[in-house]
Amino acid sequence: MYIILVYDIKEKRVAKMLKLCRKYLTWIQNSVFEGEITEAKLMELKYKASKIMVDTEDSVIIFRSRDEKWLDKEIVGHERNPVEQII
Amino acid sequence: MYIILVYDIKEKRVAKMLKLCRKYLTWIQNSVFEGEITEAKLMELKYKASKIMVDTEDSVIIFRSRDEKWLDKEIVGHERNPVEQII
Repeated sequence: MYIILVYDIKEKRVAKMLKLCRKYLTWIQNSVFEGEITEAKLMELKYKASKIMVDTEDSVIIFRSRDEKWLDKEIVGHERNPVEQII
Repeated sequence: MYIILVYDIKEKRVAKMLKLCRKYLTWIQNSVFEGEITEAKLMELKYKASKIMVDTEDSVIIFRSRDEKWLDKEIVGHERNPVEQII
C-alpha cells in the first residue's frame, strides 16, 4: 500500500514526529512523507504517532492508495534533497 | 481530476499562497489542500503560484489522481475546521 502522510504538529513535538515518520516513510517536503507500507506497519506508526501527539493541537492526515501508479507527483520549485535533513 | 497540493513556503509569502490555493481547492490542514480541478484551472493555479514563489526557497508538491475514490483519507488527531481559518 502506498501512502502520503502529512502532519501538522506543534513545534516542540516536531522533531520526535519527524524521526518517527522517517523510520517508516520517505520524507519529501517539510511535513510530508510518502512510501510503501504494510497495514501492520501503518498501525504501528499510527500508534507511535498517537503517543507523541496532543489530540487537541496536532493532526496527521494519511492518504492511502492501493497502488502508487494511481497517483502522479509533480514538484514545483525547490526540490529539497532529503539528505540535507538527515545530517 | 482530484489533486492534493502541499506547499512549503517561507512565512512572508504564506498568506498570499494560502489565499490563492483557497480559490481553487479546499484547505484541509496547515499547508495541505485537496479538491477536484480541471487541467486548465490547475495550469492557472500553477502559473499564479509560480509568481508568488521564490524557486530556491519554496516548493509545491501536487499529487494527482484521476479519481478521488482511488484514495482513502484518514485524519488522526485534531481535525481543523476550515471555517476557523477563513475568518
